Amino acid sequence: MEPTGKALFVVMDGLGDRGAETPLSTANSPHLDELASKSTTGLILTIGGGLVPGSDTAHLALFGYDPHEYYRGRGAFEALGAGMDLEHGDVAFRTNLCTLDDDGIIIDRRAGREPLGFKELYGALNGMEVEDCRVLVQHTVEHRGAMVMSGPGLSEKIGNTDPHETGKPLMESAPLDPEGEKAARILNGFTKKACEILKDHPANQRRKEADLPPANGIASRGPGVFAKVKPISERLNLRAACVAGGALYKGVARYVGMTIEDAEGATGTASTNLRSKAAKALEVKDQYDLVFCHIKATDSFGHDGDFEGKRGMIERVDAEFLPQVIGEFDVLVVTGDHTTACSAKRHTADPVPILVWHKDVRPDGVRKLCENQVRAGGLGHIHGRNVMRIIQDYLDVSEMFGE
Amino acid sequence: MEPTGKALFVVMDGLGDRGAETPLSTANSPHLDELASKSTTGLILTIGGGLVPGSDTAHLALFGYDPHEYYRGRGAFEALGAGMDLEHGDVAFRTNLCTLDDDGIIIDRRAGREPLGFKELYGALNGMEVEDCRVLVQHTVEHRGAMVMSGPGLSEKIGNTDPHETGKPLMESAPLDPEGEKAARILNGFTKKACEILKDHPANQRRKEADLPPANGIASRGPGVFAKVKPISERLNLRAACVAGGALYKGVARYVGMTIEDAEGATGTASTNLRSKAAKALEVKDQYDLVFCHIKATDSFGHDGDFEGKRGMIERVDAEFLPQVIGEFDVLVVTGDHTTACSAKRHTADPVPILVWHKDVRPDGVRKLCENQVRAGGLGHIHGRNVMRIIQDYLDVSEMFGE
Repeated sequence: MEPTGKALFVVMDGLGDRGAETPLSTANSPHLDELASKSTTGLILTIGGGLVPGSDTAHLALFGYDPHEYYRGRGAFEALGAGMDLEHGDVAFRTNLCTLDDDGIIIDRRAGREPLGFKELYGALNGMEVEDCRVLVQHTVEHRGAMVMSGPGLSEKIGNTDPHETGKPLMESAPLDPEGEKAARILNGFTKKACEILKDHPANQRRKEADLPPANGIASRGPGVFAKVKPISERLNLRAACVAGGALYKGVARYVGMTIEDAEGATGTASTNLRSKAAKALEVKDQYDLVFCHIKATDSFGHDGDFEGKRGMIERVDAEFLPQVIGEFDVLVVTGDHTTACSAKRHTADPVPILVWHKDVRPDGVRKLCENQVRAGGLGHIHGRNVMRIIQDYLDVSEMFGE
Repeated sequence: MEPTGKALFVVMDGLGDRGAETPLSTANSPHLDELASKSTTGLILTIGGGLVPGSDTAHLALFGYDPHEYYRGRGAFEALGAGMDLEHGDVAFRTNLCTLDDDGIIIDRRAGREPLGFKELYGALNGMEVEDCRVLVQHTVEHRGAMVMSGPGLSEKIGNTDPHETGKPLMESAPLDPEGEKAARILNGFTKKACEILKDHPANQRRKEADLPPANGIASRGPGVFAKVKPISERLNLRAACVAGGALYKGVARYVGMTIEDAEGATGTASTNLRSKAAKALEVKDQYDLVFCHIKATDSFGHDGDFEGKRGMIERVDAEFLPQVIGEFDVLVVTGDHTTACSAKRHTADPVPILVWHKDVRPDGVRKLCENQVRAGGLGHIHGRNVMRIIQDYLDVSEMFGE
């Protein structure tokens, strides 16, 4: 079955909100409003009713992979998003370079954040052998990186070494079940050797000369195993691309077999270049059936409790992104991955507004993509994993169940 | 528990549609409109959100049998619908008589469609023994029939012999998994012997004399195993009857233990006698708790992309069927099994409008059974398998879960 058109799937992270007035309901968003009035709308329970989604599980669901079946920790997505290649069974982590005092106590979880020498220090840890396993690391931004342990018999069922606060030493990773014993040992072995290598590394000498705290420790968190899954091209009959700034979103996209298409100036922050992202979506659409575009800053503003900032970001998407893409795709979906309530400053379980436009949808009288209007929309309350099926159906690539 | 009343369950096949205006929303249907205004309404996701239902899986779901659990191919429903009796483990098919040339290439998939001698030819193939299996065939309409293989160790996991196009020979059936090996061998053995019997049969001599193409081949498709299920009378506490024209619907109904009540002139086509179907429903209602009435042509018009035809069929149901039955049953449900969009000319995943009338329902302000009005109806968006539970509840035969 060949798709009969092209779909654009726009996710504004943490888009939903709480309260009588929300960033969406009060936004000056004429393009989004007009689109909503021609669309069918509803609310997504991304990972199921009443459940609070993480960014990783929410995106798995939105890509049609039920996280209750597929999710096995965040690390692998981070490593994939950092551009690393993983093998089935590898266990990956997010890492921080940090500053330890002479007693091994963490005094700065970010080693001063100033990245002088950080790339070199990550490089010095790359390719370490621990027992019969190989450990690869990759610097990403500031003090952050990703780490992948490869070898037989590893499991993600282990604890972090990152204590998530200063004043404590790096933790010994402990297995969470018997299967995790080897992986915990490898992680602890890596961490010990890494701290030795970092301690006397010339790059830390240069940091000292520049009056910066040394990056003499590495803290790991968020273990996640990489398990190969049937790619979206086979599972849903859709060749898909991802245009995103944030590494995690690229990582989940790579995990399900999307191709990453980098847009210049796409940063995953409020300063991202939205025009560039729209242009990239248009530029690559002929090569794919579906382009997924991720916009991160709505979520970041929500975490900061910044209602005005979140609304402003929605208005920027309306002004700088939507006008370029409306009318250029056969299916256009706009939604979020979860609610990030400005009042709660965190992800919440509240369902997220969604609109689906296609020339033949049933318009439902909704005139604005906002929490209160879409609650009686034509889509009803749907599970996140069903969104991709609806896109499939409008692109004529659904397989009928039965005859 | 004895039901406290009688229910009529009317399914207009493929009833839902896409777009701002639909056959339902534009139909002149005063009886349906008045009924809707006294009913509770909603939308059915027959086999689950975003999934495109076949006619067989959709009806299983509507009868309360989750197709994800119960569906094992279409063939058994066709054979049951043709009036054949099946044993647990039998594997059944839909068949076509076809015309082969001297090299065994199919030159007419319907053997000219003109049925002279077809009944006799099907009869000549009935009761064949292949290995330790028995093969029964039954003529239905035109070139069509059903075939059932009975014997130990059969499976439905095999390929068709029908290549679905002319210019090709009949295919060898291949097992889709090791369990299917025997069944494929029996089917291939049957097909070979059948072609030999057909070739020189006197009925084909008569066809030749009448200048009709010979029916010298038989093509089989849609293998489905018959597995005995708990009948609806035990499962739902309802004695149920089916009034339908199309064989498939009678077959699914028989599969779940409904009794078939034939109405004169019920054809499963646009020329069906709707008054006769309504009269039959009334005639038999004392013997049953639930009468299921199936009306096919709405779907057929949808497949043809004939908006006016589909609307006209709805208007005929409104004029010729509903006036007889409204007020005669204690529960009246009107819905479809799926959307057959005139724009797409196929089944789609769009949810299907439903109304449920009982004297004590909560009317929800909906004045017309149409896609746009019922989206905010009192029933919400429900799964097809839950419809029968709602009927049960209004008939007071639901078993409480818990105390």
